[in-house]
Amino acid sequence: MEGIDNVASIRDVAKKAKVAACTVSRVLNNSGYVAPETREKIEKVIKELNYIPNELARGMFRQKAGSIAMLIPNIVHPFFSTLASYIEKELYNRGYKLMLCSTDADINKERDYMETLKSNIVDGVISGVSNLQLKEYKNFNKPLVMLDYVVNSKIPVVASNHKLGGELAAKKFIDSGCKNVIHICDDKTTKVLSYQCHIALENMLKVHNIKSKAIEIKWNDFDFEGYLNLAKKVLIERPDTDGIFAADMPAAAFLKAAIKLGKQIPKDLCVVAYDGTYTTNSNILNITTVVQQVQLIANKSVENIISLIEKDNIIEPYTEIDVYLREGETSF
Amino acid sequence: MEGIDNVASIRDVAKKAKVAACTVSRVLNNSGYVAPETREKIEKVIKELNYIPNELARGMFRQKAGSIAMLIPNIVHPFFSTLASYIEKELYNRGYKLMLCSTDADINKERDYMETLKSNIVDGVISGVSNLQLKEYKNFNKPLVMLDYVVNSKIPVVASNHKLGGELAAKKFIDSGCKNVIHICDDKTTKVLSYQCHIALENMLKVHNIKSKAIEIKWNDFDFEGYLNLAKKVLIERPDTDGIFAADMPAAAFLKAAIKLGKQIPKDLCVVAYDGTYTTNSNILNITTVVQQVQLIANKSVENIISLIEKDNIIEPYTEIDVYLREGETSF
Repeated sequence: MEGIDNVASIRDVAKKAKVAACTVSRVLNNSGYVAPETREKIEKVIKELNYIPNELARGMFRQKAGSIAMLIPNIVHPFFSTLASYIEKELYNRGYKLMLCSTDADINKERDYMETLKSNIVDGVISGVSNLQLKEYKNFNKPLVMLDYVVNSKIPVVASNHKLGGELAAKKFIDSGCKNVIHICDDKTTKVLSYQCHIALENMLKVHNIKSKAIEIKWNDFDFEGYLNLAKKVLIERPDTDGIFAADMPAAAFLKAAIKLGKQIPKDLCVVAYDGTYTTNSNILNITTVVQQVQLIANKSVENIISLIEKDNIIEPYTEIDVYLREGETSF
Repeated sequence: MEGIDNVASIRDVAKKAKVAACTVSRVLNNSGYVAPETREKIEKVIKELNYIPNELARGMFRQKAGSIAMLIPNIVHPFFSTLASYIEKELYNRGYKLMLCSTDADINKERDYMETLKSNIVDGVISGVSNLQLKEYKNFNKPLVMLDYVVNSKIPVVASNHKLGGELAAKKFIDSGCKNVIHICDDKTTKVLSYQCHIALENMLKVHNIKSKAIEIKWNDFDFEGYLNLAKKVLIERPDTDGIFAADMPAAAFLKAAIKLGKQIPKDLCVVAYDGTYTTNSNILNITTVVQQVQLIANKSVENIISLIEKDNIIEPYTEIDVYLREGETSF
C-alpha cells in the first residue's frame, strides 16, 4: 500500500499502551471483554500514534470492497428473488459478492439503505426500487444501475420491453375471444417503466373493442391471502370478467379464486401472468405468462455496474430486453 | 467522537495539497476522474496529516456498523426468503439493517462470504447455512447465531422442533390410511437438525407397519422442472406409492405430477409438505403441510444476535420452536 506503509503498527500501539497486541486487536474488533479504562487508554494511543488498522487503511484508498449491493422491494417476491439469485451468480463469477438489501417497499428504509451504502462497504449498487426523488439518485456518490427506472443518462438503466409485454398479453386475450379484461397494477403514481405494459394492454384492447379495467393494488406486504380475497371479490362483483392480467402471484390468486367459484379455465376465464417466475409452472395448471428474461436482465445489470466500477464507463445508458409469451393451460 | 476530534479535516488536506476539497473527496470516494499525479499528491498529504475520513474514524472505534448479515443457501427458496423477510423487518425495528448473502449452496462461496463478513461491515451474522467444518464457525471472530445447526454452547442455535414435525406428518399418513410413503430429503451426510424430521417420520411409520422410503435429492439449484421430472419418474416406477412427504416445492411437484398421471388427490395419493410457506396455499389445491413458525424463528434469531452484539450475552444456547400441522386438500 503505497503512501501509508510507515504508519504505526498494532505492536507500536500495544507497546505504548502497555497492553498485549491481542488486547488492542480486541478493541479494534470489538470482540471479547476489555475493561473500559483499558479501552480508553488504547483509543488514546491509537489517536496519538495515528494508527490505522490495515483493513481501514485499505478502505481509505478504496481498494475494491469486492461487494455490490442490490436493493429490492421484497425478498419473498419471486421475480426479485429470482433476479437477485442470477445477479449473485453472475457477480460471483466476476469476483464480486452480493449484499442484498430489502427495503420492504418502504421509502424511509430505501433512503436509509442508500445512506448506508454510500460508505465504502460496497463498490456499487444495483437498485430495483425507486421511490426517492430523482435528485437523491443523482446525488448518490457511487456507481449505480437502476432497474426499470430512468434517472438520467449517467445512471444506466436495464429494463424489459414492457410495452411489448402488454401487447403480447392483449393479443392473447384477443385470440382467446375475451370481452372483459381486468388487469391488476400498482397505483398509477408509480413511475417505473413496467407500468408501460398496462398502458400498452389498454391501448391494444381498446382498438379491438375489448373492455378493460385496471384495478390498483398496493403490495407493501406480499400477502397471498390478500390477493385471494381481492380476486374473489372482483370475480363475484364482475361476473362477466373473462380475462385477467396480473403479476405471477396475483394471477395465481385469480386462478384459484375462479376455480373455487366453479369457473372453467380457460373457457370462462383466461389468465395471463406477467413475470414468468417458477411459480407460474409450479401450480397444478401451468399459467400462460409473459416472461421477463431474468437471467439476461441480471447479466446486463452486472455488466453495467462492473463497467462503471472498474472503468468509470457507461456501456449503454438504456438496455432494453425483450419479453416473450409462454403458453400455459389458462388461455386458448 | 471522543479522542479524535482534533485530527486533520478534509479542508486541511485540500489546502496542503493545493487542490479543491471536492477533489480530495473524489479521491476518498473513488468517484469521478482525478489525474494520477494529483491522486498521488493527495494520498501523500493524507498520510502526512494523518487525516482520517469521518466514516473510517467512526469504524475505527467500532461504533456499531448498524448492519447484520444473514447467510442463506438460496434466495429463491421460499422458506429462506420468507424467513429473511421477517428477519429484515425485526432487525429494522431494532435499529439494524440486513445484508443478505446467498451462498448458492456452495461451500466455497460460504467460506468466502464468512471471510468478508469478518471485517467491520456488519456487527454480526445469522447463518442459515452450515457446510464448513465446525472449527471454522468456532473461529469466526464476531457474534454468530446458527439456524438448525449446533456448533458449541457459545454459538446460539434457533431451530424448529423437527422431530415433532416428522411425527405430525407420520400421524397424518397413518390417519389417511397410507401404506407406502416416500419422503424426499437432502443427502444424509448433512448434519442439519431439520434432518430429524425424516428420522422421526420413518420411526413412527415403522411402528405402525407402514413402509417408508427416503429418496435423496441435492438442491444445489432450485429447479422446479427437475423436481417435476423426479416426481413423474418416482410415481411411475412405484405405482403403489400413496403418501409423499417433502419440502414445499418438491411436494408441489409431486402433486402436479400425480394429477398429470391421472391420480385422484387425496384418494390415490396423500401429499404432506414441510415448511408451510405461501407456496403451499398459492396452489389451486391447498397442500397439507407441517408449518415452521417462520416469524417466531426470525424473532428469536434477532433477539439472540442483538443480545450477543450489545451485551455479549447468550440468552439461550438452544431455542426450539414448535411446528404445527395445517390441514389442506391433499390429505384426509
